[in-house]
This record gives sequence, structure tokens and C-alpha cells, in this order.
Amino acid sequence: MTPLDADRRPVSILAISGSLRAASSNSALVQAAAATAVAGVEVSVYEGLADLPPFNPDLDEGQGPAAVVRFRAALQACDALLISSPEYAHGVPGVLKNALDWVVGSGELIDKPVALINASPRATHAQASLTETLTVMSARVVPEASIGVPLAGRNLDATGILAATELALALRGALASLAAAVRPA
Amino acid sequence: MTPLDADRRPVSILAISGSLRAASSNSALVQAAAATAVAGVEVSVYEGLADLPPFNPDLDEGQGPAAVVRFRAALQACDALLISSPEYAHGVPGVLKNALDWVVGSGELIDKPVALINASPRATHAQASLTETLTVMSARVVPEASIGVPLAGRNLDATGILAATELALALRGALASLAAAVRPA
Repeated sequence: MTPLDADRRPVSILAISGSLRAASSNSALVQAAAATAVAGVEVSVYEGLADLPPFNPDLDEGQGPAAVVRFRAALQACDALLISSPEYAHGVPGVLKNALDWVVGSGELIDKPVALINASPRATHAQASLTETLTVMSARVVPEASIGVPLAGRNLDATGILAATELALALRGALASLAAAVRPA
Repeated sequence: MTPLDADRRPVSILAISGSLRAASSNSALVQAAAATAVAGVEVSVYEGLADLPPFNPDLDEGQGPAAVVRFRAALQACDALLISSPEYAHGVPGVLKNALDWVVGSGELIDKPVALINASPRATHAQASLTETLTVMSARVVPEASIGVPLAGRNLDATGILAATELALALRGALASLAAAVRPA
């Protein structure tokens, strides 16, 4: 593939919600990101968070557990990552941090642009911890793509988010900024 | 049980390692804590971390998952908690945070004295995040019981820790301080 061909390919973004709740605002945001249309950008949702076993380096011999193999392949296949995460007790949800723990050593996030979307902009501890962890993993957190989307108390699903003009615009802007970090103009 | 009888009962401490690695320094510390003798103190080790499912509030209807029921009962039954945790990528191990996430709502840690032992005293991010999370969960992190035990590179198991006089003394001191936080003299 020549650099020119590579430029014609859409930027592929893998979107991860840090919450397993069915009615999660963060999952709704991730689904809205996948459903919205931004030119040259394709968003797919990673649904395997609950399948990852508790991180144990002793299990990471050879290929490692099947769910971990799939997670690493999905990270390798994408150009950038979008994470939308709740904050639990002033910290990162364990289930999300567990997923990151599996790829500290294997390195799929090195140099990967990441948008950290926040559905509760007042929840700053988890954002700060995630930024610290992703940075030390050598991922590139993209500030202009890392927006607060105030959803608290609005009870919107993905359709509702995209119907709220200001939210849809903010989300599209974040995706465009993330894509620009992958492939600068 | 009268207060006097209660005072005669040993202080029961539940010890949790934040690592699932078989050769973990933190697990060795926790095992050393359980094996050492401090008058009036009993330490048991919680071994169920890997059995806890990924936290999902939707699964927490009724009793909740069996492993969660057992974890909550073990927390309820103890007078204090000792946590020895590694730091992964400048953060709390996901598997340990996941365990805490299950008891944010149910409240077993409210007013519970906690010792945060650190086997890698240079690893300060995870300690700070754990302190923040435990504090917002209304647990009482006990500073004088929260010691650094420099094990990095020493490759000691529980027997080796207890054979190293300065380490054994530090660990016994932490247990005594934690017990004193439960039952002040």
C-alpha cells in the first residue's frame, strides 16, 4: 500500500465504554460515536470488556487467553482509540483498568492517539488517572479530542445524543480532532 | 457480648494482595502478615480476587453474584483490612479496583480501618489513588499502619520476609498500629 492509498482509507477508531451497565451514559456516547457520520472516519465499538480475565502475568504465556488475543488484535487494527468512562469512587473503573493492564507489556497502545471522553465533566479523578496511565503506556492522549459531554441527569441514549445538536456537534468535533491526530492535514 | 468480652476477642484483619501473580512480592507480604505473630491480632488472607466478576451494577440485583456475596461477608466479618498492592502503569491494578467497585454501594468499608502496605515505596501513584478511593468510600486509611516495605529486587517469599528482621519488625509494627486503630488503648 502506498502512502497515497493509505491516506484514502478511512481512519478507524475503536471506541470503548468503561461501563458495563446496559443504561450507561458512557456506552450511549460510544454508540453515538459509532452511529454518527464524520467524513473519512469509521468507528467500531469494542464489546469484549467483560470477557477479559482478571489480569495475571502468569496467564500471559504464549498467546495468552483468547479474549486477550482478540482485544490486542482489535487495538492493533485500529488507528486510534476513543474511551468514554465513568468514575467509580474517585477512580478508574476496575474493569477498564484491567483491560489496560493486559496491554502494558504487549505495547499495542504505544503511539496510539486516544480521545478521553467524559460524560460527567465534574468527575476529574478518573480522567486524571487514565491520562497518567495512558501517558506512561506511551499512548498519545489528544487534548482537543478529549471533551466533556455533560450527560448527567439527561438520560439520553445514542439516538437522543445525536438528536441534541450541541452534543452531536461536540462529539463529531472530537472524532474529527482524533482523526486529525492520526493523519495531520 | 459485652464490651469487655469484645475486647478479649482478637482483632481480625483481612489481608488482600492486589496481584494475582504466584511470585508476587505483595502476595508474599500478605502471607507474611498472616504467618507472623502479633498478640491479640489474627490475620486471614482473602484469596477470591480473581473470582469476582467484572463490576456491573446490573448484576447486583438481589444478593448479587456468589463471589461478591462471599467478598462482602469477609469484609463484614473483619475488623480491619490490610491491602498490599503493586502499581501497574502508574495506576491501581484493575483487578483490585474491581473488587472495591463491588462494595462502593453496599458499604462494607464504611469506617473500616485500612492499612495500605507498599512493597515498592517508589510507586506512589497507585497508593495515592487507593487512598483517594478508600477515603471517598468512607474507609479509614491508617497512616501509621501504611508502611513502605522495600522488597523490590529482593525476591523474598513470606518466610524470607519474616527472616529479615527489619522487614518483620516493620510488618509487625504495621499490624499493631492497625489493631490499635480498631481498638484504641
